[in-house]
Amino acid sequence: MLLENNNGDRSSTCHHPIGNSSGSDDGSPERYTPAMESAGEGLLVPPLNFSMVDYGVFRSGFPDIANFPFLQTLGLRSIMSEPPLVNIPEEKIRESLRVVLDEKNRPLLIHCKRGKHRTGSLVGCLRKLQKWCLTSIFDEYQRYAAEKARVSDLRFMELFDISGFKQPPTFSSHSKN
Amino acid sequence: MLLENNNGDRSSTCHHPIGNSSGSDDGSPERYTPAMESAGEGLLVPPLNFSMVDYGVFRSGFPDIANFPFLQTLGLRSIMSEPPLVNIPEEKIRESLRVVLDEKNRPLLIHCKRGKHRTGSLVGCLRKLQKWCLTSIFDEYQRYAAEKARVSDLRFMELFDISGFKQPPTFSSHSKN
Repeated sequence: MLLENNNGDRSSTCHHPIGNSSGSDDGSPERYTPAMESAGEGLLVPPLNFSMVDYGVFRSGFPDIANFPFLQTLGLRSIMSEPPLVNIPEEKIRESLRVVLDEKNRPLLIHCKRGKHRTGSLVGCLRKLQKWCLTSIFDEYQRYAAEKARVSDLRFMELFDISGFKQPPTFSSHSKN
Repeated sequence: MLLENNNGDRSSTCHHPIGNSSGSDDGSPERYTPAMESAGEGLLVPPLNFSMVDYGVFRSGFPDIANFPFLQTLGLRSIMSEPPLVNIPEEKIRESLRVVLDEKNRPLLIHCKRGKHRTGSLVGCLRKLQKWCLTSIFDEYQRYAAEKARVSDLRFMELFDISGFKQPPTFSSHSKN
């Protein structure tokens, strides 16, 4: 897991600016300028496989420069890049989940290369914590992975042990209303 | 469009309790009891094609009784049922969008039968208001409609005229942080 965090309270995990190695030190998205908007008529281009997962939690594939104006609209505090491993160590997913569950990291974007396997598995583990049945977890995973779905990911989510985590707040307790 | 709203300020649209014609008058989800949880071990069952669209806006297919404990976790104020018409009149979509954009109706669930065509078209029109490029709007639509995607829906979204609407707040302005 690589984590960029704009809070200043950087943890032991690595940090990186979004797809721009010459970015500002604090990783602030303010460095992107309107000239980077590549879509016509001020249109916004979300990253591949972008979606909202929960209040202040988003998922996607790897953002490129065309996505930066859109990402600015999310007001992100943190970006979590899951490393390109076919078999992600369970401890890494546990560490990532703790970051996702910590509300001070939100709004937060979880991404990997395609937003399918690693991101999908992490979101699936979050759904287990949220007490979703496995059928619904797999259905959501497959909506993004489609024909690239991996049995190894499904098994990982099924066997993931949530006993060390407190149950996170429900959707409604996040609601402002 | 049918709209159930727990605010008490019912508008001129129709209202209905969720799949339960003997429900309480105010449409409160509190009438559902734990005995309705059909999944084992207290697991929650989101409706078919459930997802979060924006802060306090959710989408799905038609909820059944097994979904009620999950829906309770959303703290919904409103439920919008799109009518089963293949060709939805544009004015109905405009009226629905105005309901979605009114924050006092949130948290709100938009649903139709499968959460694919009518719901997908309405969400697509919302994305137009949010200035998403058409490619990303179609990609999101197809993630839910899959092999049932309809060219008529894509054309509807492309041609939908957003000029009468104010641009809605961005994701970040909804964020609590």
